[in-house]
Amino acid sequence: MDSVFVKDISVPTLLLDETKCKSNITRIFSKVKAMGIDFRPHFKTHQSKYIGKWFWDLGIRRITVSSLKMAKYFLQSGWNDILIAFPINIRELDEYLLYANQINLKITISDIEALGFLSKVLTFPIEIYLEVDVWSVRSGFDIDNLTEIDRALKVISKSKFIKLVGIIAHNSNVYSCRSPEEVCESNKKFLSKLFDLKNYLIMKGYNIQLSVGDTPSASICDDFTGIDELRPGNFVFYDVMQVAIGSCSVDDIAVCLAVPIVAIYPHRNEIVCHGGAIHLSKDFIKIEEMDIFGLVVDIQENTWTSPIEETFVKSLYQEHLVIKTTPEFIAQHRVGDLIGILPIHSCLTAEAMKKYLIPNLAWVDHL
Amino acid sequence: MDSVFVKDISVPTLLLDETKCKSNITRIFSKVKAMGIDFRPHFKTHQSKYIGKWFWDLGIRRITVSSLKMAKYFLQSGWNDILIAFPINIRELDEYLLYANQINLKITISDIEALGFLSKVLTFPIEIYLEVDVWSVRSGFDIDNLTEIDRALKVISKSKFIKLVGIIAHNSNVYSCRSPEEVCESNKKFLSKLFDLKNYLIMKGYNIQLSVGDTPSASICDDFTGIDELRPGNFVFYDVMQVAIGSCSVDDIAVCLAVPIVAIYPHRNEIVCHGGAIHLSKDFIKIEEMDIFGLVVDIQENTWTSPIEETFVKSLYQEHLVIKTTPEFIAQHRVGDLIGILPIHSCLTAEAMKKYLIPNLAWVDHL
Repeated sequence: MDSVFVKDISVPTLLLDETKCKSNITRIFSKVKAMGIDFRPHFKTHQSKYIGKWFWDLGIRRITVSSLKMAKYFLQSGWNDILIAFPINIRELDEYLLYANQINLKITISDIEALGFLSKVLTFPIEIYLEVDVWSVRSGFDIDNLTEIDRALKVISKSKFIKLVGIIAHNSNVYSCRSPEEVCESNKKFLSKLFDLKNYLIMKGYNIQLSVGDTPSASICDDFTGIDELRPGNFVFYDVMQVAIGSCSVDDIAVCLAVPIVAIYPHRNEIVCHGGAIHLSKDFIKIEEMDIFGLVVDIQENTWTSPIEETFVKSLYQEHLVIKTTPEFIAQHRVGDLIGILPIHSCLTAEAMKKYLIPNLAWVDHL
Repeated sequence: MDSVFVKDISVPTLLLDETKCKSNITRIFSKVKAMGIDFRPHFKTHQSKYIGKWFWDLGIRRITVSSLKMAKYFLQSGWNDILIAFPINIRELDEYLLYANQINLKITISDIEALGFLSKVLTFPIEIYLEVDVWSVRSGFDIDNLTEIDRALKVISKSKFIKLVGIIAHNSNVYSCRSPEEVCESNKKFLSKLFDLKNYLIMKGYNIQLSVGDTPSASICDDFTGIDELRPGNFVFYDVMQVAIGSCSVDDIAVCLAVPIVAIYPHRNEIVCHGGAIHLSKDFIKIEEMDIFGLVVDIQENTWTSPIEETFVKSLYQEHLVIKTTPEFIAQHRVGDLIGILPIHSCLTAEAMKKYLIPNLAWVDHL
């Protein structure tokens, strides 16, 4: 591959800081290992074979993905223990079964009807995780409805081929936390509810794994006793949302959208760049009633600075972004300069950009 | 091309209703023609050569795009009068000049420094539009700052090669309107401000075109006297946001995201589908303090129904969407069914999906 120099970039480009990214991976992996918990990182954030290899090289062999398409992509690059942590889509059943025949594919069951359907068509054993919904109100069997969970267990027990290996849950509620204390409080309640369920299942004769995964709790909390598997994903890059939650420092963020300045308006203290909703995605955080669509950094040789003070992306159009800043920052920049935007939600920015540039080194693939 | 049947879809797929789309194009084109105004539709919404041809077949020859990349794409399929309605990015200047040598390429100037830079490097004539900002606080010369506009005119008058052909402006403020009356009131003030500028420029000896373009005013308002060129874009598909503004009826929306149901939770009156922020984008509208990420329809042979009552996308994750609905709708659907989501912002949904399916006919390209 030819080297690509940051100075040669002319359009919005997602930069990846290899050092920060590897350090994020190592930090979380070491922590999980030290706790004696299995690590099954979620690859939906980076969706990259190249970055996947950094995990592989550390000895990590189990991964999580969020779609069949993503499972196929990683399967093709050699991963062979993959959990699809998304409710099985029975319209794609043939393809699920195809891959289940090739590798150790684990499927998520979140609905009683889908489970019944699967039980009717299987002709060989398959490992499933039952998804439970612990007050996230997204997908999964309601953890407060044991009758429904019992119905699922009944279908499983009658099936010759369905093998229940685990309970999977995701605590969406940590995303509304705004301090480490809130995250750990939320995580504690979440885990305690899961332990009750595990005990209930043990009484019924099921020896199952408990698998949970969110970046805030994996980054912040220390007590996962009783949990068998952790599967966070976003930590590989982190983002401004994770900084707001307290999961990381702003200098841990490993991706940054390089954008060219196309107009400067000193009378408004505003700068317009090429780079919009189609590059960053439209996630935002609210700070003091203001919507913030990204933080702003200066780009350096192989990395970028900490965020510039009193400077942020205040609005986002299809291809424009408008930065509110200070006279000092304006005085230091000219039309045609490249600056960097730290994304609010790096998973969606990576998905929108579809490739990464490791500055002065190489382009890196994305599904 | 092989026909693709809706019944064979298994993953999120953006359906395009050719009849609705062509009718949207014809309606706006006829209206603009009847007003005696030039039509230069913005192709940033559809970004499709295939759909572009529907415009070409009506005799339309001038188009607007929002990036150099998009200009290149349409230039390669035969369009040769293209306005890039985005502030010139001087890092891509060589490529602008390359295309300007091949076709009638019009460039947008929104910043005094970029203009100065252009004036220094040109070696052949180029047509520019000066972008003015009429209280949108996005890009363009502040219309209330004639001193700055005069500075730009001075640079232009000194240049041998820069030919000022028009003033371009976009009224972002119509997007916060919530009735046709509000849109026309906003449009009237916007146009009146532009007429003052045009008169000022005429006094200074500049014979320029006034070019404006937004889908709400182009769809709703009847008086554009004094305007030379209209360049709306979104009308080709419309979306739920445009319905909220009053630009169209919900049955005019020409794209719909087909999504498979993966879980049904009757106790919550909620349905989960495969289809998330990476498919729809995260734009939303607020109705009675609720964030709504899409309306829900049933899919029919070649099209879809009107939106289902009391049913909407209430939350959107990377790959999941959660629909709030009624017991009646739940009773009529099963896991594995396909349903349709009308997007809040069709430009971003089309950009995220990157291709369209005309049901039972063909896949259609997107840049």
